[in-house]
Amino acid sequence: MTLCLSTLSRGMRLSCSTSTSPISQVTAFSSKVFSPKGFTKGQYSVGIYHFSSTTRTTTLNQDKMQARKFVITKHFQGLPKLSDFNLVEETLPALQDGEILCKAEWLTVDPYMRAASDRLKVGDQMPGGQVARVLKSRCADFPEGTQVVANFGWRDLTVMKVPPAEKRGFDSIHAMPEMKGLPDSYALGCMGMPGNTAYFGLTRICEPKAGETLVVSSAAGAVGSLVGQIGKIYGCNVIGYAGTDDKIEWLKSLGFDHALNYKTTELPKTLKENATKGVDCYFDNVGGEFTFHVTRAMNPFGRIALCGAISIYNNDPRKPNLVPVDYVSMIYKNIRQEGFVVTRFAKDWFAGINQMRDWILEGKLKIEETKTIGFENMPQAFIGLLEGKNTGKVVIQA
Amino acid sequence: MTLCLSTLSRGMRLSCSTSTSPISQVTAFSSKVFSPKGFTKGQYSVGIYHFSSTTRTTTLNQDKMQARKFVITKHFQGLPKLSDFNLVEETLPALQDGEILCKAEWLTVDPYMRAASDRLKVGDQMPGGQVARVLKSRCADFPEGTQVVANFGWRDLTVMKVPPAEKRGFDSIHAMPEMKGLPDSYALGCMGMPGNTAYFGLTRICEPKAGETLVVSSAAGAVGSLVGQIGKIYGCNVIGYAGTDDKIEWLKSLGFDHALNYKTTELPKTLKENATKGVDCYFDNVGGEFTFHVTRAMNPFGRIALCGAISIYNNDPRKPNLVPVDYVSMIYKNIRQEGFVVTRFAKDWFAGINQMRDWILEGKLKIEETKTIGFENMPQAFIGLLEGKNTGKVVIQA
Repeated sequence: MTLCLSTLSRGMRLSCSTSTSPISQVTAFSSKVFSPKGFTKGQYSVGIYHFSSTTRTTTLNQDKMQARKFVITKHFQGLPKLSDFNLVEETLPALQDGEILCKAEWLTVDPYMRAASDRLKVGDQMPGGQVARVLKSRCADFPEGTQVVANFGWRDLTVMKVPPAEKRGFDSIHAMPEMKGLPDSYALGCMGMPGNTAYFGLTRICEPKAGETLVVSSAAGAVGSLVGQIGKIYGCNVIGYAGTDDKIEWLKSLGFDHALNYKTTELPKTLKENATKGVDCYFDNVGGEFTFHVTRAMNPFGRIALCGAISIYNNDPRKPNLVPVDYVSMIYKNIRQEGFVVTRFAKDWFAGINQMRDWILEGKLKIEETKTIGFENMPQAFIGLLEGKNTGKVVIQA
Repeated sequence: MTLCLSTLSRGMRLSCSTSTSPISQVTAFSSKVFSPKGFTKGQYSVGIYHFSSTTRTTTLNQDKMQARKFVITKHFQGLPKLSDFNLVEETLPALQDGEILCKAEWLTVDPYMRAASDRLKVGDQMPGGQVARVLKSRCADFPEGTQVVANFGWRDLTVMKVPPAEKRGFDSIHAMPEMKGLPDSYALGCMGMPGNTAYFGLTRICEPKAGETLVVSSAAGAVGSLVGQIGKIYGCNVIGYAGTDDKIEWLKSLGFDHALNYKTTELPKTLKENATKGVDCYFDNVGGEFTFHVTRAMNPFGRIALCGAISIYNNDPRKPNLVPVDYVSMIYKNIRQEGFVVTRFAKDWFAGINQMRDWILEGKLKIEETKTIGFENMPQAFIGLLEGKNTGKVVIQA
């Protein structure tokens, strides 16, 4: 049965498609590996799962459960719309040796998904991580009842053939980290991909030193809010930019030295006023004109960690983005700008997660989440994120 | 006497200005330090010399010689014009203890001067290096008759108060390198600033490995032609781009694996054809759209050494340059782009020069120079350089 996302409020109405024989129209699920085209090394791979082939069936039983998943009905133009998503059902196959059946408990939406969607085909499932519970297991390493963190994508039930131990990791599946009493959802945020993006991106790419000045854009987001707080732990003068006055107040409560509303102030002016000794590190989540002005304000040997470019994510991907670039600053000030995806730090993954956890437990990092209830509401949560409606990490309780 | 540059052919006609009392109109020379605004660390400082104060005089004798220097009459708009320069005379002061009087033998014009000129004031002398002969010395470290390499700028005679030994270097003054029979002019090219720009920029910023693919833009220039040859020494597949078919032939004769005329071919197509395994290193002399296309063709963890941006040097410096930027490639492929000025490698300066010399003597580097005869012809040499008329290093024999 293909389900069509029509109108959505707090919950979601699911209406049948026009198929005459709903059950026979079930989209059979087959082996699917999301692998961005042409990225053979250091790729950002998500949603890797390996199924045995499935057959269409009308029989629902414990081994042939119906899963739901969000697929795209067309490529987003500008800001995604609810009608760009379809919620479809699929029949899960009977569990084989080495496989597990998991139920999503917490899901995540993140800005990178907007860029990643350009590489999907129409009908492909949206990618992303989950905290999931093992409902049924034929793999001794992940017993029934335990939790996993896995890149299952936007879906509620998943059968996975567990990869060999040496191929497991944050980008396929791993056991829940030792949370030490912290909320499970943190495994998708401050103790997951966004947490390590902030931790490694700042410490390994920006390489901040005590007394230096750090600028963070999208500072009230899941990553930015952590970056600024880690910057304080490292002894930096931290300047954060966000888009609402509420967010600005929140950033100040987190300990940012300066927090500015980029929509109501002038960037060159506020940089001059608050980065009185110049900018040494810039954690860049937005790109474009913002980066141009920060580059101008940078000191010699400044470092830019290029984490995201949300300013252009909603542009037409077929057209080059024309942005101002200050080559004279880049060259004469020996500025280093480095794009990065957190996958590159895979071998140190759990060291990063554990460091973040310990800082939280020590009271050095404050965490805020914007929660959405209901798996069905993932598209709204995603659109809200891209509209900047969230404060901190956006998570969805299934 | 202020001399006005009017018409220039092979030599230059010097015509008197309208001053009624030529000698009394001599521009008195005072202590001048060219220091790009706001660059306190790692700055590219040129033309540093310290004079005792001068007095206007009509007396010419050995201690009060007339020097000539090129100053700018206005800031360049687009390609510089001959009328943007004035050749003016100045009276040199009597030599004091610790000072030397030098006569230019070889001078240099380089692309960076176009960008640097934006930071000059009207009436300022053009900056740059020289190989000069010590005519008269009151400093034991630089005896009469010896040669020096110094940043005296576009001038024929210079009095310098020699800085203390610990402050001497390639950006102020140093003795001629041990040339081992190579031409003196090489101290301004392959064994000077451009040589070390190529050597350190490639080896320290691009960090090429055997078997990788290196792309070089402005490959027939002083720096680019060396970069490609060093890339071959490192075992790279080297692809060079230049703007005339003659230059392409020359690059092939230097051992470049592929040499393409960017004016008559399509960059994305030639990159695909010649960088069949993708681009790992890009030595960027041009910026802009060229960089966009190379970035697209790069492999994960590609490195861009941003050495120059000649594609935008002639643009209006007051307006931001709008250029296409491929953020998705930059981020998802973990690409590092680093601007650099060769001054950062100061402590290893002579190691670089000596390495270049040894490679030349071993036959691993071929050197070509485009020579201009006559100090008076510096503006033409400079304009020709910016028009891409040269092959290899442009030097001026005084």
